[in-house]
Amino acid sequence: MQDELINKVMQEVMKRVGSGSSGTANPKEGGGSQQRSRPDLVQVTEFVGLGLGDTQGIVIANVDPSIHKLMGINERYRSIGVIGGRVGAGPQIMAADEAVKATNTEILAVEMPRDCKGGAGHGNLILFGAEDVSDARRAVEVTLEVLPKYFGDVYANDQGHLELQYTARASRCLSHVFKTPEGRAFGLILGAPAVIGVLMIDTAVKAADVEVVGYASPAKGTSLTNEVMIWVTGDSGAVRQAVVAGREVGIKLLSAWGQEAKPVTQPYI
Amino acid sequence: MQDELINKVMQEVMKRVGSGSSGTANPKEGGGSQQRSRPDLVQVTEFVGLGLGDTQGIVIANVDPSIHKLMGINERYRSIGVIGGRVGAGPQIMAADEAVKATNTEILAVEMPRDCKGGAGHGNLILFGAEDVSDARRAVEVTLEVLPKYFGDVYANDQGHLELQYTARASRCLSHVFKTPEGRAFGLILGAPAVIGVLMIDTAVKAADVEVVGYASPAKGTSLTNEVMIWVTGDSGAVRQAVVAGREVGIKLLSAWGQEAKPVTQPYI
Amino acid sequence: MQDELINKVMQEVMKRVGSGSSGTANPKEGGGSQQRSRPDLVQVTEFVGLGLGDTQGIVIANVDPSIHKLMGINERYRSIGVIGGRVGAGPQIMAADEAVKATNTEILAVEMPRDCKGGAGHGNLILFGAEDVSDARRAVEVTLEVLPKYFGDVYANDQGHLELQYTARASRCLSHVFKTPEGRAFGLILGAPAVIGVLMIDTAVKAADVEVVGYASPAKGTSLTNEVMIWVTGDSGAVRQAVVAGREVGIKLLSAWGQEAKPVTQPYI
Repeated sequence: MQDELINKVMQEVMKRVGSGSSGTANPKEGGGSQQRSRPDLVQVTEFVGLGLGDTQGIVIANVDPSIHKLMGINERYRSIGVIGGRVGAGPQIMAADEAVKATNTEILAVEMPRDCKGGAGHGNLILFGAEDVSDARRAVEVTLEVLPKYFGDVYANDQGHLELQYTARASRCLSHVFKTPEGRAFGLILGAPAVIGVLMIDTAVKAADVEVVGYASPAKGTSLTNEVMIWVTGDSGAVRQAVVAGREVGIKLLSAWGQEAKPVTQPYI
Repeated sequence: MQDELINKVMQEVMKRVGSGSSGTANPKEGGGSQQRSRPDLVQVTEFVGLGLGDTQGIVIANVDPSIHKLMGINERYRSIGVIGGRVGAGPQIMAADEAVKATNTEILAVEMPRDCKGGAGHGNLILFGAEDVSDARRAVEVTLEVLPKYFGDVYANDQGHLELQYTARASRCLSHVFKTPEGRAFGLILGAPAVIGVLMIDTAVKAADVEVVGYASPAKGTSLTNEVMIWVTGDSGAVRQAVVAGREVGIKLLSAWGQEAKPVTQPYI
Repeated sequence: MQDELINKVMQEVMKRVGSGSSGTANPKEGGGSQQRSRPDLVQVTEFVGLGLGDTQGIVIANVDPSIHKLMGINERYRSIGVIGGRVGAGPQIMAADEAVKATNTEILAVEMPRDCKGGAGHGNLILFGAEDVSDARRAVEVTLEVLPKYFGDVYANDQGHLELQYTARASRCLSHVFKTPEGRAFGLILGAPAVIGVLMIDTAVKAADVEVVGYASPAKGTSLTNEVMIWVTGDSGAVRQAVVAGREVGIKLLSAWGQEAKPVTQPYI
């Protein structure tokens, strides 16, 4: 009876303090995991849906001309789809990359605040432009549908996180953000706190013959996050090998404090 | 008996983890809500008082010359009043705007760190300059007195927040921060995560004929917050209409994850 | 029996939400306090150890040439030691300053993300360069060994923190970061939220005849932290006096909300 009582109290308490309480990058502890994905309950025409990491998607059929100007959006894009969330940038960017492949949209902007609800990384804001609202809506829907996959190799605990991403063919969102060549393999190797990332990137480049496209650290190329990362291209097998090598050492370092470094969804790489 | 026991445990736990535990912008969960506002207990001459959002106010009668130089303060301002807090920038700025209307002080500086104790917005640091210490002290007192009003249309939950502000006549603090014309109406429409703000600002400008003075987003004009906002002027009725329209759609989007978007104090717009 | 049950539940809950739950700078509530410092359990050659503030240290014997280039590391430094943590910059910098005094290493880089796991300050990333891996390893070991001392005059609660540091002889890490003269006394006086720091620095310079080397605030010289600070040099007795005066008023202001401002370890100044 005591155990049952303890569990009951635990549930009540976790309901109250569960969201974002551990100041980590773990989107499971944010609103996303409690999402009652009932778009019909949100009586806003523009609302499309929700996703992990306290992510939300909307679509605006006819953007006001003054908003076009303020946001620097080319007027030919009558409609915009918008994805934004508190936790993560990489997963949403990878998901949006699939979405632009699948729809007649362009990436207008990707902005990355310092966020993660006390965690070490970024939040995100992604704008799709379309001439037709159904294209914009479809891009947002696809992004939200595939988003869980790209949290698969995000590992998080109270001390920090790792992010690994891989695709055999980068598209327009990845090239927009990372200046990585479209149509070629892309890999992201990232660790937080930044010290973990330093060993991950050194391990990654030693594991396979990849071409480093870019590097970012707290003082360079991030929004002051506590992360070090590289992104690479090259032969798809080599890129995957580099990512896997970075992941392996990253998991060991992130677990060093004694807490398991758990993937947010299912590892896909 | 079980319910009573559960409540007792809940209370003990919330006492321990309640402050800032949900990584939100909600100042009620910060130290501000537990404030024992007993200035007589803080045996520091310069201490003036406390406010929501972990805000504190002090006054320095005779600022050291080296501090004048370091902080870029004109030496004619012998005395300074200082307001600063962990959660919010807008509420403290609106309150300080009332304070400069009511006192013989100038706004010397307004700085906005990335803060909110894990939430999506800013913290604040506001400097009033005065030639007489009693003016500086009065400015800080007025700011702290009126501050709760300006948290009235701040809505917060675990996923994000909204901020709406309105005044029929902007004064020197608002013009300092937002470059909005003094003596005219001012409205602020802001949503976090930023995706929510995008729909709020489009809705706002469509609702009424207002003049957009400025815009900010994670990558532009904020301290890397996960917010999108506009501020507007124009006919006071139109400004209010735009703010109300933004608020209405913002509340619906912020509630989409299933948690109520509650005003921190009493809505005033 | 009820008390015992309540305690049991409290323990289970705090285990779940305890880490970083209060969004403060207090490293005791982070993984650091739960560290099972068992380097032998972390089966990574490069892993050296753990420290307060979710700090980790690693060493890389032979840095890959592409990483040398990406990180801007002079190639003569074949080996690097890396310290990085989620909470604090000052303590790790002071500890690294001792480490460079004690070893044949150079400071290659110090980067400060906006972190503290929801708290008001910085995180850290420090790179030591060495021609020999044993020097790099020793520098990281010394940093981790002495780190607790430099959390001694860090005071934290849910509303903010103070940081005081003092040394009679600054070395290469302090000069790298703060441009303070090597071989001379160094003092750091810092308060968060920033309003507290404003009174601390004014009090400090009035207390003793010191030479202010630098100043930082949310908008200037920090990573958008909610802090105001100065660092000073001069006669070691005067520097100590200034630091002590700043600490005394800072503790009173930080306690104003009713929560004790507790030192993280043992005050050493």
